[in-house]
Amino acid sequence: MSIESAITAISAMLGERVSRSKSDLALHGRSISHFPVSPPDAIAYPETTEEVAAIMRICAQQCCPVIGWGTGTSLEGQAQALSGGISVDFARMNRIIAIRPADMDATVQPGVTREALNEDLRATGLFFPVDPGANASLGGMTATRASGTTSVRYGTMRDNVLGLEVVTARGEIIRTGTRARKSSAGYDLTGLFVGSEGTLGLITEITLRLHGQPERISAAVCAFPSVRVAVNAAIDTIQMGLPVARIELLDEDSVRAVNAYSGSELRAAPHLLLEFHGSEASVTEQARHFGEVAQEHGGAGFDWGIRAEDRTALWAMRHNAYLAILNARPGARAIVTDICVPISALAEAIEATREDLAQSQLQGPILGHVGDGNFHAILLIDEADTEEVARAAAASRRMVERALALGGTCSGEHGIGIGKLGYMQAEHGGAWAMMGAIKQALDPDNILNPGKLVPPRPAGET
Amino acid sequence: MSIESAITAISAMLGERVSRSKSDLALHGRSISHFPVSPPDAIAYPETTEEVAAIMRICAQQCCPVIGWGTGTSLEGQAQALSGGISVDFARMNRIIAIRPADMDATVQPGVTREALNEDLRATGLFFPVDPGANASLGGMTATRASGTTSVRYGTMRDNVLGLEVVTARGEIIRTGTRARKSSAGYDLTGLFVGSEGTLGLITEITLRLHGQPERISAAVCAFPSVRVAVNAAIDTIQMGLPVARIELLDEDSVRAVNAYSGSELRAAPHLLLEFHGSEASVTEQARHFGEVAQEHGGAGFDWGIRAEDRTALWAMRHNAYLAILNARPGARAIVTDICVPISALAEAIEATREDLAQSQLQGPILGHVGDGNFHAILLIDEADTEEVARAAAASRRMVERALALGGTCSGEHGIGIGKLGYMQAEHGGAWAMMGAIKQALDPDNILNPGKLVPPRPAGET
Repeated sequence: MSIESAITAISAMLGERVSRSKSDLALHGRSISHFPVSPPDAIAYPETTEEVAAIMRICAQQCCPVIGWGTGTSLEGQAQALSGGISVDFARMNRIIAIRPADMDATVQPGVTREALNEDLRATGLFFPVDPGANASLGGMTATRASGTTSVRYGTMRDNVLGLEVVTARGEIIRTGTRARKSSAGYDLTGLFVGSEGTLGLITEITLRLHGQPERISAAVCAFPSVRVAVNAAIDTIQMGLPVARIELLDEDSVRAVNAYSGSELRAAPHLLLEFHGSEASVTEQARHFGEVAQEHGGAGFDWGIRAEDRTALWAMRHNAYLAILNARPGARAIVTDICVPISALAEAIEATREDLAQSQLQGPILGHVGDGNFHAILLIDEADTEEVARAAAASRRMVERALALGGTCSGEHGIGIGKLGYMQAEHGGAWAMMGAIKQALDPDNILNPGKLVPPRPAGET
Repeated sequence: MSIESAITAISAMLGERVSRSKSDLALHGRSISHFPVSPPDAIAYPETTEEVAAIMRICAQQCCPVIGWGTGTSLEGQAQALSGGISVDFARMNRIIAIRPADMDATVQPGVTREALNEDLRATGLFFPVDPGANASLGGMTATRASGTTSVRYGTMRDNVLGLEVVTARGEIIRTGTRARKSSAGYDLTGLFVGSEGTLGLITEITLRLHGQPERISAAVCAFPSVRVAVNAAIDTIQMGLPVARIELLDEDSVRAVNAYSGSELRAAPHLLLEFHGSEASVTEQARHFGEVAQEHGGAGFDWGIRAEDRTALWAMRHNAYLAILNARPGARAIVTDICVPISALAEAIEATREDLAQSQLQGPILGHVGDGNFHAILLIDEADTEEVARAAAASRRMVERALALGGTCSGEHGIGIGKLGYMQAEHGGAWAMMGAIKQALDPDNILNPGKLVPPRPAGET
């Protein structure tokens, strides 16, 4: 039983679609975050579910780790091969299997990216709303329970995955869920696999809920005198039930960074960036209501008459904020934090984070999906400066501790991977052991993305 | 190890809050559906989570079955004590622990009914929308993943439970989820327990998502020349993205029954009953759009100016439809079917069901939450007429087979219990065995509601 035997057997099946090239191994061992490279022993590029199942059966026989790979854009090191093994790269499983406008759903292979799907949907009047920023694969988005800027209105992957095809640890092919809009027929296995980060099975097909393209879309920007005030305006907006499609906070440092990177000309102040979706009348009503909220909170320069091309530029700017912030300090890397708290605690959580970062003498622009109570500080670090790295890690830890104390979670949307494993016990207590029991039941030999998400098994235990 | 020893130990702890009275045993062995009585050996009435945990530890030690009990309104025999044991009745755990208007959430004990919660919420401007008809307990609604008339707009229990406190099979108390609106921190255990029908743990606390009371509510009724046309109008309404809060179908037989039972005066024709929620402007817009759809489909008597008190009467009438239909044939009992299909297949599924029932010479008025693709035929049977019972059971089976062939599910909202266990293999295939593996991992001695939901364990296996 060995990884080498597994690779030999898989190579016999896939031929040149197994790669051991240095560059490919390095690529699949890398994370876009600050984690050290941890390459697999080989990468397999299956083209069908049956091939994935065959790979899994070989790996089960050889006790060889199997790690799913989408576009490599996860932020907590989810796809790194901590114990080596085979990365299963879904790049060649990128077919849109069906789009069913009448049912407002679509079935895709895991390698399809969200932009590719939306491109194909354009003519149907439908779209897939979940938008984590990166043009991630829908398989990866499902596995990490991704969300992002539009989740305040359209929900996360949890809310938008209807059913899955999954290859289990033993190489069986199962289906979870149906295409009915709801079901009470047994355990919600779909929900269990969404967010399981490849530790329970490999997702080989995803049926997604689609939404109607809004008749009218309008983007808006508004500056505020302070982050606290901007957050309070966002909280009021949510609490009054305004169905905003996006409501994003950028603090002043973030604004400066995006202006420099994207050439935008936002005034140097904290901003809310919004989007309204609906009929002409509804968008107008939403904008008017938000305008009133903004005014009450001293908002300035509220503008919701943004033209379509400027709207595209606005969200491109927001999506590039991470790169913009990295760019603000040449040579820096980043620890991207990601906490989510009940909305009533959001102002406090952000304020405390800002004070902490100032005291810790860390550069950490803050931005977030404030309608969900979710925000990030992008902690800039010089990786060679171990003292600064330690300071950033400590501040990141305090952010999580604060989130948990406020009734929130250590991860709003980036998931656990390697980066957040150390917080699982504190957040979940006995429920974390239960996750371990489920993992043990479905992957007794611990070959599926070992070392991630569940309690590490003591050495010597398979 | 015995049930009797467990009862002795639990009685020593709870005193008179353990009941073995004949009437109480019969009550807790009964289902409001057609299933035979299957009583527990005793009923415990805990008042705290700690008491539930202590009960569970005793039952674990004695290998004594434990069945949760809310209001006894489940429709598939979920709470029946197939192997005897202890019913844990949550009637005394009916405290609303917290309502947090700023976060739009509430935490309740499982014995709180949905009406009791909404009563308490009235002054807050918030409400809890999931409405299965019966004034069920929120614990029971969580355990069966209930939905109902408003799920087309507000989702099911899956979408409205943020977190849980659960007593595990070993008597440990765990918490799942947080109060943050979203999280990517590990397996979605909350989602796993929602709909698990008491087979994985006993739910002792539920944190629910609340919604803002709409500024304006308007109900509407509209008659249609045929069921097919009414369904097509409903499908068009959903496909155009109209955010209706309710869209219910009653076929002509159902209309006749509710008129007779509730004194309503709907014309003898298939009807859609609707509710619009929103601002004044939005409700008007929705009603106008639906009016156009109705007109295109030959709808008649569309009336959306229904006054508040008449609206209450309308939904009371709809909620009493089951009793009304039972009443239409004195002495009859009912097999309440419950299938859900992709919306594009709904007209076909209903039409085929109607033809089948006519050919089978069965009385089976049809009604449903057609916005979700979910409908029920209430098959009236004389329990003494074994031939008729068999005919109804066969028709019910064909309904499910049709739903599965159309990409749907054997249960839209009533769950599995005893009634749908026979369809799980056909619907889920290998995924059903996976449910069994999860059950085995979390309840190795099979004491939690044994005989329900998962594959029956072969005799001799614990």
